[in-house]
Amino acid sequence: MERVFNFAAGPSALPLPVLEKAQRELLCYPGAGCSVMEMSHRSSAFQEIAAKAQADLRKLMDIPDDYAVLFLQGGASTQFSMVPMNLMEKGGTAAYAETGNFAKKAAAEAKRWGKVVTVVSSKDENYSYIPEITDDLIPTDAAYLHITGNNTIYGTQYRTLPKVGVPLVADLSSSILGRVYDVTECDLIYAGAQKNMGPAGLTVVIVKRSLIGKASDEVPAMLNYALQADADSMYNTPPCFSIYIAGLVFAYLLEQGGVAEMERRNAEKSGLLYAALDGSKLFKGSARADSRSNMNVTFTLPSDELTAAFVKGATAQGMINLKGHRAVGGIRASLYNGMPIEGVQKLVEYMKRFEKENG
Amino acid sequence: MERVFNFAAGPSALPLPVLEKAQRELLCYPGAGCSVMEMSHRSSAFQEIAAKAQADLRKLMDIPDDYAVLFLQGGASTQFSMVPMNLMEKGGTAAYAETGNFAKKAAAEAKRWGKVVTVVSSKDENYSYIPEITDDLIPTDAAYLHITGNNTIYGTQYRTLPKVGVPLVADLSSSILGRVYDVTECDLIYAGAQKNMGPAGLTVVIVKRSLIGKASDEVPAMLNYALQADADSMYNTPPCFSIYIAGLVFAYLLEQGGVAEMERRNAEKSGLLYAALDGSKLFKGSARADSRSNMNVTFTLPSDELTAAFVKGATAQGMINLKGHRAVGGIRASLYNGMPIEGVQKLVEYMKRFEKENG
Repeated sequence: MERVFNFAAGPSALPLPVLEKAQRELLCYPGAGCSVMEMSHRSSAFQEIAAKAQADLRKLMDIPDDYAVLFLQGGASTQFSMVPMNLMEKGGTAAYAETGNFAKKAAAEAKRWGKVVTVVSSKDENYSYIPEITDDLIPTDAAYLHITGNNTIYGTQYRTLPKVGVPLVADLSSSILGRVYDVTECDLIYAGAQKNMGPAGLTVVIVKRSLIGKASDEVPAMLNYALQADADSMYNTPPCFSIYIAGLVFAYLLEQGGVAEMERRNAEKSGLLYAALDGSKLFKGSARADSRSNMNVTFTLPSDELTAAFVKGATAQGMINLKGHRAVGGIRASLYNGMPIEGVQKLVEYMKRFEKENG
Repeated sequence: MERVFNFAAGPSALPLPVLEKAQRELLCYPGAGCSVMEMSHRSSAFQEIAAKAQADLRKLMDIPDDYAVLFLQGGASTQFSMVPMNLMEKGGTAAYAETGNFAKKAAAEAKRWGKVVTVVSSKDENYSYIPEITDDLIPTDAAYLHITGNNTIYGTQYRTLPKVGVPLVADLSSSILGRVYDVTECDLIYAGAQKNMGPAGLTVVIVKRSLIGKASDEVPAMLNYALQADADSMYNTPPCFSIYIAGLVFAYLLEQGGVAEMERRNAEKSGLLYAALDGSKLFKGSARADSRSNMNVTFTLPSDELTAAFVKGATAQGMINLKGHRAVGGIRASLYNGMPIEGVQKLVEYMKRFEKENG
């Protein structure tokens, strides 16, 4: 069977050269005599892999030294708890922007630890846009403002990050490395790896060192950023193989021109698709134009029957996982860094044919 | 470079046929058109992989239906917190057996949530034996008794599990699938995958369903067994690739004759090594004979110089990671299921040569 174009929202397509390198090294990592999966995390071979992964990520995102970079487990959903447990006192207040399902989940976990103030919400239009967040909306006692940088389900994305007087915490799970962020505009960034960085099972946290180290004794050691930072993410055995694959992705992205080049390619890919939507009478983009994501393009067809026929036809032609999330319906095409432009071109051609036959 | 014999305490050697299969399927899982690393966890292909992994583990360990099997993240260290948070009320009491470093760490995390009573300890002899635990030692208000089934650092192992009047929680990270356990003797078993099951980044929990569902709202969703069980371990994106590799290991073990056959092989492997120790004047076993592990064999040489020379010579001959943990010193040979008997035979021959030259 040939490889397909995989438009999944995550886990999602990885760059083929990364998979090919991993395949070559799977039984015997060069010089180690064993697979990366079999390496002691304390071995010099793995220590080098982890150090290079971190160094390359720092290079890609231009991360200053006063930020710690952590390779953790548990996904963004674990960060939903770690953020309040580390950044505010128990019973304290934090500000949350409600821009979708994961933003709501983040707030729900924070409520177990303190008070949540929802400062903006785009629920009124089914999360189809990114609301503006101004400093006057933030409670004066808020420990931080939490935003979800890209909303996979709805296909929306912050074009610029809000500037407020409290620390900014950004869940960048589905847009990290897909567009250029100025890390210094954030105080804490977290992201599950399974969109733009590597396999599921790895979570990257980038946090200003001055912000951590104040967690109470009640917080489990594994959920304490300071302990993880002090142990260089090896408080216990880390997800070694996922770190290795993410490291291969980082090295590949550097070779390809870094995040600026990824942003250019993603603008080109998503631009092709948005132009097709704007020129269509059959397909209709779901997100408001000023809030459109360069990672997840969401759109609808006039009926459930046409939607089902579109997905079925796409699958038959080797374009998989295009069905939209049930909260929005329709179609979702995820265009992470691992998706080549050829996949998007093929999708746009199919859309035009489909419209001619069904329009 | 050729593959070496890897005696690491974990992550550690995996069965070669498992790695070979993973290598063949790395770019394109049969019928899926993409790598397992790229699969949506909601796709039918991955759902089948996860369901088969669970079914095979249930078969291997003869796990009854009234136990949930969870595939989680965070390692045993996260379980150190999840166990008290789910199995006892905040401020409650639990009994812990102190048989080494990880047992102490488990108790330390429980102390963040409630009271810990250390019912036995082998600290008096540097954790070189497994103390007997009788029911009269357990406080009447203890929510459970926690034991560490195998202590990698010290090379000790429970031969039989204690029978007490409270639920038994067993950290079997380094002996699960390495010897036959009667699951019904435990109420909760947890184990990091990276010894006998697969790559680091996956944690297996086997828990009696009647024991869970009572966690307070304070407990983060990701640390709540009941939520994870209700979502069949997909409350969020699971560590898909690690589950896939563990599934390959489970299928391989079934083909090889199951856990009883693994126990036989591990008895043979560790027996060879213990016989060599008992017959030696140079090498001295660290663990008390009645508490010896079939997974980690620990021994010392008369001086640091000889120890260093032994490790160096072994490495040169393709036997790696034999250096013992600093808490015990000397040598540790880990003989998990992935270690073939040829590796142990080679080690024993080397020990005999080394003794002749240095005895």
